[in-house]
Amino acid sequence: MNSETIEALRAGNPRAVARAISAVERGGTEAREVIADIFRYTGRAHIIGVTGAPGTGKSTLVNEIAKHYRRRGQRVGIVAVDPTSPFSGGAILGDRLRMQDLSGDSGVFIRSMATRGALGGLATATADAVQVLDAAGFEIVLVETVGAGQNEVDIAKNAQTTMVVEAPGMGDDIQAIKAGIMEIADLLVVNKADHDEVSATVAALEMNLNLKPKVENDWRPPVLKTIALKGDGVADVVDWIGKHRQYLVEQNQLASRDYARFRGELERVVQRELMSRVMRGVNGTKVDALIEKIASREIDVYQAAETLIGKES
Amino acid sequence: MNSETIEALRAGNPRAVARAISAVERGGTEAREVIADIFRYTGRAHIIGVTGAPGTGKSTLVNEIAKHYRRRGQRVGIVAVDPTSPFSGGAILGDRLRMQDLSGDSGVFIRSMATRGALGGLATATADAVQVLDAAGFEIVLVETVGAGQNEVDIAKNAQTTMVVEAPGMGDDIQAIKAGIMEIADLLVVNKADHDEVSATVAALEMNLNLKPKVENDWRPPVLKTIALKGDGVADVVDWIGKHRQYLVEQNQLASRDYARFRGELERVVQRELMSRVMRGVNGTKVDALIEKIASREIDVYQAAETLIGKES
Repeated sequence: MNSETIEALRAGNPRAVARAISAVERGGTEAREVIADIFRYTGRAHIIGVTGAPGTGKSTLVNEIAKHYRRRGQRVGIVAVDPTSPFSGGAILGDRLRMQDLSGDSGVFIRSMATRGALGGLATATADAVQVLDAAGFEIVLVETVGAGQNEVDIAKNAQTTMVVEAPGMGDDIQAIKAGIMEIADLLVVNKADHDEVSATVAALEMNLNLKPKVENDWRPPVLKTIALKGDGVADVVDWIGKHRQYLVEQNQLASRDYARFRGELERVVQRELMSRVMRGVNGTKVDALIEKIASREIDVYQAAETLIGKES
Repeated sequence: MNSETIEALRAGNPRAVARAISAVERGGTEAREVIADIFRYTGRAHIIGVTGAPGTGKSTLVNEIAKHYRRRGQRVGIVAVDPTSPFSGGAILGDRLRMQDLSGDSGVFIRSMATRGALGGLATATADAVQVLDAAGFEIVLVETVGAGQNEVDIAKNAQTTMVVEAPGMGDDIQAIKAGIMEIADLLVVNKADHDEVSATVAALEMNLNLKPKVENDWRPPVLKTIALKGDGVADVVDWIGKHRQYLVEQNQLASRDYARFRGELERVVQRELMSRVMRGVNGTKVDALIEKIASREIDVYQAAETLIGKES
C-alpha cells in the first residue's frame, strides 16, 4: 500500500479498512503486502473470541457487547466467521440485519468472513483481518465463530479472551461440556437466560468447572447469564472481559497468549505455502493418475503421497 | 500386520478391528502399515456421512438407522467423530449410552474418534478408520460428525451419501440453509418432527432447494421427517439412502465421489507430512526466536514462514 493508504487505514477510514481486509481475504502476495505494511502498528487491540453452537444467539450478544463498548467511547471491530458459508463480505442474512443495527456508526466496523476453500485459508484470513482492525485503531476486536469444530477452536484460540456461548435446552450436547471447548473458555455465557432449563445448564457448567484441579492463580471462568435480545447481563459480560484482561496483564500472560497465537499462525502459513508449492510443481495429470491408482486399490494414499513428495531422506 | 491378524480383521473380529483403528489413530508409520495391508480389501462398503449441529439428535438417529440395517441382516460400522473432544475410544458419555443400546451385537462396530491435536490428523484418522471397517466387511459405514465447521464438512465429504440433520426451533441459524452445508447434503432430515416449528423448518429447506437451478438428472435431496427417539421415519431414511446409492450407480457417479474423496485424503496426507518434515528439520530454538520477533513486531508471520522454508525458487 502507499503511505497515504496506510495513513487512511491507521486513521480508521472504513473504505481503507474494507479494502485491506478484502486483500488479506484474497491471500497470496496481496495479503503478504498488507500485513508487511501494517503489522508494526498492531498490538494495541484487545481481541475477544466468541464461539458457540448455532441457535445460541451469539450474534445478538456480540452486537450488544459492541454497543456497550461504543457507549464507553471505544471503537469496535467485529469479524464474523462462518466456516460453513462460501459467501463473504456481509452476504449472510444475519449480518445484513446486524449491519442495520449498528450502521451509521463509524466507530464500529463489521466484516463477515467465509470459507474460501483454501487449505487453512479461513483461519489465516481471519487472523490477518484482526491485524488490520488492530492497526486501524479498533481497541476492541470481536471474532465470532459459528459451531464447535477444530477450525472454530483454532480461530477462537487466536484471541486474548475467549467466550463460549451456550443456550439452555439445546439437548444433551452442551457444547462447552465437551472438554475441548471448556478448555478454551475464559468466560462462559448462558444466553437466553429467560428460557427454561437455564439453571440446569448453569449447574452443569459449574459442576464441570469444579472437576478441574485447582491451581493457584489460575483463572476460573465465570458462568454468566444473559438475555441478549433485551441487553440483560451484557454489562456484566463486558466487566468480566475487563477483569480477564487485567488478570492476563497481572500474571504476565498476555505474552504467552501471543506466543500461542503467533505460533499457530506461523504453522498455518507454512503448511499452506508448502502445499501450494507442491501442487504447483506437480502437473495435474500426475495427480489424476495417482488418484486413479488409489481408486483401483493399486496403491494407497500414503504411497501416493510418497510418490508426490518423495520418501523422507 | 501378520497374515493371521489381517485374516481376523477381514473376518470382522472386533478385537482385530479395534486394534487396527487404534493404530490408524496413532498415525505415522503404524497407520501407513495398516492401510498398506488392508487397502486392497476395501471398496465394498457404502459410506454414509451424517452431520448436524449439537442438539439435533443425530446420534439417536444414527443408532436407529444402524438397528434398521441390522434387521435387514447387514453389518454396520459407526465412526462417531467429535472434533471438540480430546478423548477417543468411546470416552464420550453419549457413546457409552449408545454402546449399551447396540452392544452384544457382533454385527455392529462403534468407535469414537476425537481431536488429536495433529494438523489435519482427525480427518485422516477418520478416513483410515473407514477403510478398516470397509476391509472388515461392514457393508454400511456411518460417519457421524458434530457441528458444522469446515472439518466436519471435510469429513462428511468423504462419504458416498451425506445426510444433514436439522431440528426444528433451533433459532435463525438453520444450519443447512448455510450454502456450504446445503451443497453437501444428499438427504436432509428434520429430526424431532413432533416439535413445533417443524413445518417451518421443512418449508425453509424446501424453499432453499427450489432456489437451485434445475439440471437434468441432478439429484434433488429429499427433505425427510423423523422422530428418532421413537424410530419414526427411519425406514424412510434408509430407503432414501438406498435410492441415492442407486442413483450414484446409474449415473456413474460413484467413481467421481471416490475421486473427490481420495484427492482430499491425498492432499491432507501430503500437507501433514510436509509440515512435520519442516518442523522436525528446524530446531525449536529457531522457531521460538522467530515467534519472539513476531511478538515484538520486528517481522510478520509471512516473513517468519519465509525464513523457515525459504523464498519460493
